[in-house]
Amino acid sequence: MHQKFMEEAIKEAEISSKEGGLPIGAVLVKENQIISRGHNRLIQKDSSILHAEMDAIENAGRLNHEDYQKCTLYTTLSPCPMCSGAVILYNIPRVVIGDNQTLMGAEKLLKDNGVEIIVLNDDKCKELFEDFVNNNPGIWENELAKVGNTTELKE
Amino acid sequence: MHQKFMEEAIKEAEISSKEGGLPIGAVLVKENQIISRGHNRLIQKDSSILHAEMDAIENAGRLNHEDYQKCTLYTTLSPCPMCSGAVILYNIPRVVIGDNQTLMGAEKLLKDNGVEIIVLNDDKCKELFEDFVNNNPGIWENELAKVGNTTELKE
Repeated sequence: MHQKFMEEAIKEAEISSKEGGLPIGAVLVKENQIISRGHNRLIQKDSSILHAEMDAIENAGRLNHEDYQKCTLYTTLSPCPMCSGAVILYNIPRVVIGDNQTLMGAEKLLKDNGVEIIVLNDDKCKELFEDFVNNNPGIWENELAKVGNTTELKE
Repeated sequence: MHQKFMEEAIKEAEISSKEGGLPIGAVLVKENQIISRGHNRLIQKDSSILHAEMDAIENAGRLNHEDYQKCTLYTTLSPCPMCSGAVILYNIPRVVIGDNQTLMGAEKLLKDNGVEIIVLNDDKCKELFEDFVNNNPGIWENELAKVGNTTELKE
């Protein structure tokens, strides 16, 4: 089941890649149905906030608390502090992560706030991201430099 | 100095109020100059992510790490976990908060990640927010319900 929804997040990552953006995708799933999709649009929209997870949360529209509580967020890459903060703000109880080996996000923050985390260690997620970094070293270096070369929490 | 920039954040909160939105405003200041302004647009844009702080960070464009490190974020209300996560992601070293008595955000998270916090306990910030809540109890109740009646971190 998780794999099926991760495939959809991967499709979003591929769309971003084709647009010239970072290959990171996400879908928001409520009661086994995808209610919104999103991908990283930093480069495409010259945005600071449209990470894949934020894009998916925004595209879902404004849900009620009871609906957020029935949601699982699928993301191809371990979520950063901003996206993790959005998950905590809206009380989304579960995040399924494709890959956290190429980049580790704020998973400890999520766990400390009672969010269930499932890491799939998905080869395709890893491959998409590594291929991007290898094929666009300058772009990726530039992206990473904007956040001080880390997305991990300091404490 | 802090008061001067907080006045500008308050102007943003007032713009939001006139638009029928939540009266929360923010400005991003770099080396004593306002480089971007923002206000809460949840109601106006039917958005889940455009809190005042996020709006100001987005409107600044994509800065380099060195520039973010020279910034102070002024916000009329204590920042939620999402906005605090964005501050941590971009390594913004200081947040000046107008009011944290009507609503307490994720200040502990900011502090734990080395962000300096200055709370002004500004009467105007408090008044703006309290007036909105008193005059629009249904709208505010609805807003607060979306986040499970709290913006504090659980741990």
